[in-house]
Amino acid sequence: MLPPQQCSKDARISARRDQIIAAARLCFRKHGFHGAGMAEIAKTSLLSVGQIYRYFANKDAIIEEIVRRIVMKKIRLMTGNAHNLQQVAHNLAHRRIGNLSAPYKEEQCAEQKEQAEIDHALMLEVAAEATRNPAVEKIWRDSEKQLFNEAKSLLSATFPQFSETEMTAKVETLAVICEGTAFRRLTTVHADAELLEAIYHHYFQSLFETDEAIGVEN
Amino acid sequence: MLPPQQCSKDARISARRDQIIAAARLCFRKHGFHGAGMAEIAKTSLLSVGQIYRYFANKDAIIEEIVRRIVMKKIRLMTGNAHNLQQVAHNLAHRRIGNLSAPYKEEQCAEQKEQAEIDHALMLEVAAEATRNPAVEKIWRDSEKQLFNEAKSLLSATFPQFSETEMTAKVETLAVICEGTAFRRLTTVHADAELLEAIYHHYFQSLFETDEAIGVEN
Repeated sequence: MLPPQQCSKDARISARRDQIIAAARLCFRKHGFHGAGMAEIAKTSLLSVGQIYRYFANKDAIIEEIVRRIVMKKIRLMTGNAHNLQQVAHNLAHRRIGNLSAPYKEEQCAEQKEQAEIDHALMLEVAAEATRNPAVEKIWRDSEKQLFNEAKSLLSATFPQFSETEMTAKVETLAVICEGTAFRRLTTVHADAELLEAIYHHYFQSLFETDEAIGVEN
Repeated sequence: MLPPQQCSKDARISARRDQIIAAARLCFRKHGFHGAGMAEIAKTSLLSVGQIYRYFANKDAIIEEIVRRIVMKKIRLMTGNAHNLQQVAHNLAHRRIGNLSAPYKEEQCAEQKEQAEIDHALMLEVAAEATRNPAVEKIWRDSEKQLFNEAKSLLSATFPQFSETEMTAKVETLAVICEGTAFRRLTTVHADAELLEAIYHHYFQSLFETDEAIGVEN
C-alpha cells in the first residue's frame, strides 16, 4: 500500500486531470480541435494555462488521453457480451453505438446518452485531425489496434474453431459495420430496423457458425 | 441557345466558383473547417474577400458546394457498375473507396488519387462539423439522401425481385459497409484482402440473390 500522502497526491493529480479532460471535451466539442486553444481549455477548467501544462505537455497529449478513455470505455462495454451476436445485430439495426454489445436500456440516463454523443463527435473530430496531423494519426492507429485486438481475443475465445487469419478478417468486417453505423448516426434513418436486424443476424451467423454442423467438425 | 454574351458570362461565373472551391478545399484540408476563414480562402484563390462574397454567401455555402460536388462524383462513379458486386467486394476488401464501383486502375493518375484523399478528409471534416452546426447537418443529410436514393434506384433496376422496403434495408447495409471502410482508411490493415473479398462477395450474393432459384421465382 502507498503511504497516505502518496495516495492523496495521486488522487489530487487524477482529479486535476479529470477536470482538464472534462473541460477539453466541451471546448473541442464546441469549437473543434483547431478552434479550441489551451487558453480556452484553461478558462473552462478554472485553472491557469501554467497549471494545465503541469498535467499535459500539449494539446495532442490531451487528445491522446481523451481517445484513450473513449477506447477504454468501448473495451469495457465490449467485454460484457461481444459474443451475443443477436444483441449486436439488434443494437446495430437501431444505431445504438457506444454500448454496442451491452443490452441497451431505454431508461439509460440522459447524462450517459449525452456523453456518448460527445464521444462520437470527438471521435469524428480526431479522425479528421488524424488526416493532417501525424501525432494524432499515431494516437488513432494505436488505439484502434488495441480495440481490434481486444475484440479478436474475445471472439476467438467464443469461436475457437477459426484460424488467426480467418478471425482477423471476420473481426475486420464487424469493425467496418460498427464504424459505418456510428458514422451514419447523423444521416436519416431509411431502413426498417427489424429487417436490418434480421439481415445482420443472418450475416453474423454465417460468419461465425458453420451452420451445417456446429461443433461437430471441430 | 443562349446569346454569346450570356454564355461567356456563365462560363466566367463558373470558372470563378471553381477557383474559389479549389482554394477552399486546400484551406479546409490544411486548417480544418474552423481554422480556415474567408480571408484565407480569398488569399489562396487570389481574389478579394469582397469578390468571394459575390459568388458564395458565406462559408456554409462553400461547404455545401464542396459536399455537393463530392456526392456528384460518387454518383457518377456508382452509375458505372454498382451492380457488379464482385467488383464492389474487391474494392472494399482493398479499401479502394471514392471509386468504389468503378474498376480500379493501378495506373490511376496521382492527381486523382490525391483528390480522392482530400475528398475523404473533407468529408470527415464536414461530418465532425455537422454534429455542431445545424446548417452543415442539413447539407450532410440532404446529400446523403440523394446518394442513397440514387444507389437504391440503380440496384432496384438490377434486382427487381425485391420490395421497396427490402431494397432499402439492403442498400443501408451496403452504405454502412462503404462508409465504415472509408472511415477505417487511416487504421492499420489487419486482415488479408483476399479473405475479406471472399467474405464480402458471399455476403452480397446472399443479400441480392435468392441462390436456390435466381430469376425463376420472379
